[in-house]
Amino acid sequence: MSQPQPVNRRIVLAARPNGMPTTQDLRLEEAAVPTPGPGQLLLRTLYLSLDPYMRNLMDEAGTSYAPPIALGAPVVGGTVSRVVSSEHAQFKAGDLVLSNAGWQDYALSDGTDLTALGDMAQPSLALGGLGMPAFTAYVGLLDIGQPKPGETVVVAAATGAVGAVVGQIAKLKGARVVGIAGGADKCRYAVEELGFDACIDRHDPQLAQRLAQACPDGIDVYFENVGGAVFEAVLPLLNHYARVPVCGVIAHYNDEAQPPVPNPLPGLMTTLLQKRIRLQGFIILDHYAERFEAFRREMGEWVAAGRVKLREDRVDGLENAPAAFIGLLQGHNFGKLVVRVAEA
Amino acid sequence: MSQPQPVNRRIVLAARPNGMPTTQDLRLEEAAVPTPGPGQLLLRTLYLSLDPYMRNLMDEAGTSYAPPIALGAPVVGGTVSRVVSSEHAQFKAGDLVLSNAGWQDYALSDGTDLTALGDMAQPSLALGGLGMPAFTAYVGLLDIGQPKPGETVVVAAATGAVGAVVGQIAKLKGARVVGIAGGADKCRYAVEELGFDACIDRHDPQLAQRLAQACPDGIDVYFENVGGAVFEAVLPLLNHYARVPVCGVIAHYNDEAQPPVPNPLPGLMTTLLQKRIRLQGFIILDHYAERFEAFRREMGEWVAAGRVKLREDRVDGLENAPAAFIGLLQGHNFGKLVVRVAEA
Repeated sequence: MSQPQPVNRRIVLAARPNGMPTTQDLRLEEAAVPTPGPGQLLLRTLYLSLDPYMRNLMDEAGTSYAPPIALGAPVVGGTVSRVVSSEHAQFKAGDLVLSNAGWQDYALSDGTDLTALGDMAQPSLALGGLGMPAFTAYVGLLDIGQPKPGETVVVAAATGAVGAVVGQIAKLKGARVVGIAGGADKCRYAVEELGFDACIDRHDPQLAQRLAQACPDGIDVYFENVGGAVFEAVLPLLNHYARVPVCGVIAHYNDEAQPPVPNPLPGLMTTLLQKRIRLQGFIILDHYAERFEAFRREMGEWVAAGRVKLREDRVDGLENAPAAFIGLLQGHNFGKLVVRVAEA
Repeated sequence: MSQPQPVNRRIVLAARPNGMPTTQDLRLEEAAVPTPGPGQLLLRTLYLSLDPYMRNLMDEAGTSYAPPIALGAPVVGGTVSRVVSSEHAQFKAGDLVLSNAGWQDYALSDGTDLTALGDMAQPSLALGGLGMPAFTAYVGLLDIGQPKPGETVVVAAATGAVGAVVGQIAKLKGARVVGIAGGADKCRYAVEELGFDACIDRHDPQLAQRLAQACPDGIDVYFENVGGAVFEAVLPLLNHYARVPVCGVIAHYNDEAQPPVPNPLPGLMTTLLQKRIRLQGFIILDHYAERFEAFRREMGEWVAAGRVKLREDRVDGLENAPAAFIGLLQGHNFGKLVVRVAEA
């Protein structure tokens, strides 16, 4: 019997989601494994990173930093991949690389978007604690948030891929850190394992009061990655000269229409003004050239020394990526969410 | 016949305004001229500055940088004053000083809040083009806005005390400058006299379209001093990496309740994020120690060389201050508004 011809399973955007994506929007299909041409190489996906930004790329408008995913095309995403075969001078079969192969078993690359990973003990960390999410935390917190010893830093999604690193780096810099997370288990983990000073359940009906109690000296840095009710609870607690790096607003990624409210903009602008607050958006893609080396060195040391702990929420099987991604948007993951697509 | 005893006319806050102040809220009354005690001096107000921030101090909440004006107390305000009599070692009768004597003919001072003005040709400039409003423009534009040659700078209230200086300094720095002002006369003045590249009437029903036409390369710096419809017209035109110094929101100072609108916050945060925009509030009081000397030197040179033009809107008589102030909040002034309280 001959070896069965391998197929390329891929999850494509079948329809643009209305609000929260459904598994119907994300269709598993099979295609032939492509063959590399001159200068190309074939990649086998080992780990697929699932990150909230992907939701924005499912909308027709896309984002300012990336075009929308075309209907019928594989969902985009960072991967750790193994080179299967190579017609490229710089890579050979067996090499482990960081890639953007997307939600599929196999992908071609011309090598330009690959980073060689060498011999990493835990390659999936290149998608999390030593990769984009932690780098986002590092740049947003240190370059924009600029916490000083004794200041209070607040971060939501506190056990997520970004929030957990924000809080731990802030602790290393001498700040008091208050997290917000979904549920008692995550809150306990944030305090007991990650060393946060306090963590508040985002489902608590008294969120604003709890946050105020946990921040008796106000808030100096709010790392914004959720928006919504958390932002509203944070705003009145911000101190003079507070800094708010704006990294994401996951609470709104599935919004369809905004409900009518008394216009909050005048109040926001007045608060920014009177408290001399800086609100600054950033996209991590902009910062690789100048800051990634410093991040990799410093973060590598922190992780090796056990000063920053990394928790991975690993899902097995590409076919489970859609449900895992929907869970991510609902806050069901506990740690950095990755899909193990094939044995390393 | 003996000289009639001089009285101290003063305008006190009779009632906290509901929305736009009325002349009933601001009552003219007479009191005895106070007598300086040891270490004090008596000041005669020559010029009173009228500025939008005073409106905020009429509300019970006050601001984060100054307490509210007490009911029955004179309205606060910067003044150019003459020392009438002095029991203070550093000042003598006849000295011209910058003071915070407020809306009254006479005031006592212990000298701590006075700045000697020496022999100024046009002392009222210490309240405008060489004083707080122009310093606000200088710090907000240069330190926060940081315009680069060829970038587009937008400023509203373009012929006002702050806006006119923002635009002219931006031109000196090589930016393209688009103003927004109330009415054709002001717009013509901004372009023909102040050298703005374009100026749009804020009453134009097609404000957003006109602004887009005047900013074909988008907006890199928006100096926010009005809020409301102007901010809404600016937001979609902001470029990547735009800077928005938040100096004031005069359009909202008389708001009573905010009308319900589809919540604009998620959209604002998404725009800040995707375009990497920095929105930063500032209060000029914070910057005197570090920046006022540089401002005074540089601005003095620009004004002396005719590179920055200053237009004063002068009202005669303390009794006319309330109506002039209400006009200021409605945009009726044309240039820096000062009240001449007594002959210099």
